[in-house]
Amino acid sequence: MLISPDLCARLLASVEAGFSGQIAFTQELIRFPSVRGAEHACQDHMFRALRARRYAVDRFAMDRDAITTHHGGGAWSAQHSDAIIVVGVYHPRREKGRSLILQGRVDVVPTGPEDMWTHKPFDPVIKGDWLCGRGGADMKAGHAANLFCVEALRRIGLQPAATVYVQSVVEEESTGNGALMAHLRGYKADAVLIPEPEEEMLVRANVGVLWFQVEVRGLPVHVREMGNGANAIDAAYRVIGELRRLETEWNDAKAGREHFADVDHPINLNIGKIEGGDWASSVPGWCRIDCRIALYPGEAATRASKTILDRIAAFARSDSFMSNNPPKVTFNGFRAEGYVQEPGTEAEAVLARAHEAATGRRLQSFMTPGYLDARVYANYDKVPTLCYGPVSENIHGFDERVSLTSLKRITGSMALFVAEWCGVEPLSC
Amino acid sequence: MLISPDLCARLLASVEAGFSGQIAFTQELIRFPSVRGAEHACQDHMFRALRARRYAVDRFAMDRDAITTHHGGGAWSAQHSDAIIVVGVYHPRREKGRSLILQGRVDVVPTGPEDMWTHKPFDPVIKGDWLCGRGGADMKAGHAANLFCVEALRRIGLQPAATVYVQSVVEEESTGNGALMAHLRGYKADAVLIPEPEEEMLVRANVGVLWFQVEVRGLPVHVREMGNGANAIDAAYRVIGELRRLETEWNDAKAGREHFADVDHPINLNIGKIEGGDWASSVPGWCRIDCRIALYPGEAATRASKTILDRIAAFARSDSFMSNNPPKVTFNGFRAEGYVQEPGTEAEAVLARAHEAATGRRLQSFMTPGYLDARVYANYDKVPTLCYGPVSENIHGFDERVSLTSLKRITGSMALFVAEWCGVEPLSC
Repeated sequence: MLISPDLCARLLASVEAGFSGQIAFTQELIRFPSVRGAEHACQDHMFRALRARRYAVDRFAMDRDAITTHHGGGAWSAQHSDAIIVVGVYHPRREKGRSLILQGRVDVVPTGPEDMWTHKPFDPVIKGDWLCGRGGADMKAGHAANLFCVEALRRIGLQPAATVYVQSVVEEESTGNGALMAHLRGYKADAVLIPEPEEEMLVRANVGVLWFQVEVRGLPVHVREMGNGANAIDAAYRVIGELRRLETEWNDAKAGREHFADVDHPINLNIGKIEGGDWASSVPGWCRIDCRIALYPGEAATRASKTILDRIAAFARSDSFMSNNPPKVTFNGFRAEGYVQEPGTEAEAVLARAHEAATGRRLQSFMTPGYLDARVYANYDKVPTLCYGPVSENIHGFDERVSLTSLKRITGSMALFVAEWCGVEPLSC
Repeated sequence: MLISPDLCARLLASVEAGFSGQIAFTQELIRFPSVRGAEHACQDHMFRALRARRYAVDRFAMDRDAITTHHGGGAWSAQHSDAIIVVGVYHPRREKGRSLILQGRVDVVPTGPEDMWTHKPFDPVIKGDWLCGRGGADMKAGHAANLFCVEALRRIGLQPAATVYVQSVVEEESTGNGALMAHLRGYKADAVLIPEPEEEMLVRANVGVLWFQVEVRGLPVHVREMGNGANAIDAAYRVIGELRRLETEWNDAKAGREHFADVDHPINLNIGKIEGGDWASSVPGWCRIDCRIALYPGEAATRASKTILDRIAAFARSDSFMSNNPPKVTFNGFRAEGYVQEPGTEAEAVLARAHEAATGRRLQSFMTPGYLDARVYANYDKVPTLCYGPVSENIHGFDERVSLTSLKRITGSMALFVAEWCGVEPLSC
């Protein structure tokens, strides 16, 4: 059921009419410094926002046992968030259309040194077309769009003619356990849309992600006896060298792999964090590195974990220091497999029409080499999962920002998508 | 004035008689976890110990301006200790002999991961001949010996016939500013003895030490865009490589240098600490390394600092990432020059006789490639400065320990040294 040109025009005008309020709401979200473990207040804000808009709201804690026994569950480390998951449910009067999950999340990555930001990271400053702030692009702007695309219907007296779930999760940046928990809670729909910052494109394929920490320990001594002391920082760099060799091999394996063969470097190994030693004049006795590596879709996380373990163990045996002090490898976060959203679904066709109507351009798709919660719905519910969102810059960097004109286009496209996918009915009083 | 065989025997017997008390006092000192900035309680303990033994006690804060304007003053960073300096003054009735500074200090280096210790690091366990614990060897055992060698005289009704200063300082492990402050306060004597753990040998020559921190900053991005983000951890490692080349050049310059030419690797560069990045899935935007490098005696710390600055700046200009993001170099601790204790002093001759009488072996001397507070007295007061102390293992490491039989021999040697250097007089009532 295509939507009429008239409804299309009214919906886009309605998005426009609501956009200043949408920006203000996005700014409210950015003001919460909702880094891992500190998302509670922001989730409560989402709870209130959903309830105020007449959603029935379910909120629930993560079930550690259920998550960690699931093969796609991320490791439950001491840093794991205990914030709740919030799901707003918007029921139609009559379930005529196709149901939809609109997913967002409120966890954001650390800011790094604040003095490298032009403005304070949680101060949502607008400069020209850009809304700046940590987590604004990634992905509070998209999460606000989840709410405001439905509001665009309500503003003109309509509502979705099928159940819409607005899911607000956490742990997207570390384990993906928030989305997994919503799945384990039993939420399921005919399609899922997640407005991550994807440059106004649809994610066609997406890597899996593994997190692991390698800890090297050695024999610290006074620097005067340096020749006798194994330097754990040096040893950690040797481990990094071996992991880089593994990364090269995994990238070489892209040959012939659909969605990946033409990408320059699809598998990124990142050494994101390092800490070692206590004192400038002591040869360091310990060093830890926090690593993240990508997996091709279809590759089992368990198998990749074992490859990494075996590879580090074999390297350690060849290293004069580490053979006596094998590094300790801990999988401390993502244990997530990638996914491919195969072309040809009706959901994608609806999104393509909505996108073209809202932006005037054809919908393009691409492979993105970062983790996405979409993998939960694509892999475990096996429903069409559309990861699609606004233009951004510097996500995970300094001066992260999202384009407001792009956000408006995307919100328009999302409103049209909801109207066509779910159908519409007159607003309940 | 040589001391008589009879006095010698009585003094060694007196050290023996007091040794269980000396061990107990050393254990009391070890129980204070007096790492940098946390030496206050231990210094107050020393204050009470000196006063109880009838020393006149002076205690004073460090004078930041006086220290930092002195060319040998270490940098006053945020981590600098504000513990006081304690000087016990033991006056004779008649100043007949040669005065003496016995210096010790109570600051100790961090323990590292406590689970790598056999016993808790501040639990002074005795196992066979070894007294274990962080800071026991380095140098609370020697510091206790400062007190107990004088006690050995008093136990047999004697006291030094010249002023003895027992100086208890801090910041020996980071800046050397404690000893410098005692010097700036005006304390001076005809000789100085510092019982650092020196394997029952006399330090003939000693390197200077510089501390510096290099901070690399870059452009963090999401790991999905890794090719665009400069990885600060990788960049820091390139800086380490350049510093290692500098270290090699400085070691090559040992040729023809007395006390150093025959030492395998006299100049140690230590990368003692590293910290970088915040998040496994963000390309790290910053990394800091804490470094320590040695200088040959006679080499000006200011000149060496400039060499390091210039070297890092030149390297950064040749590096595609760092040329846009020059590393920041901060000298954050030691800015200390080395010293040579030339042979032929009367003080050394007295120590050699004392050592032989107490240990039955000839006194040997050596070059040690670690910082010593002795540089203050050797360079600025230009008085004979004897750094000489017990056998130890694992200083700055796990299970640091000092040999108790060695400690007793050294204490005997020190008592004989005090008796001959200062002369003796009957104990004041």
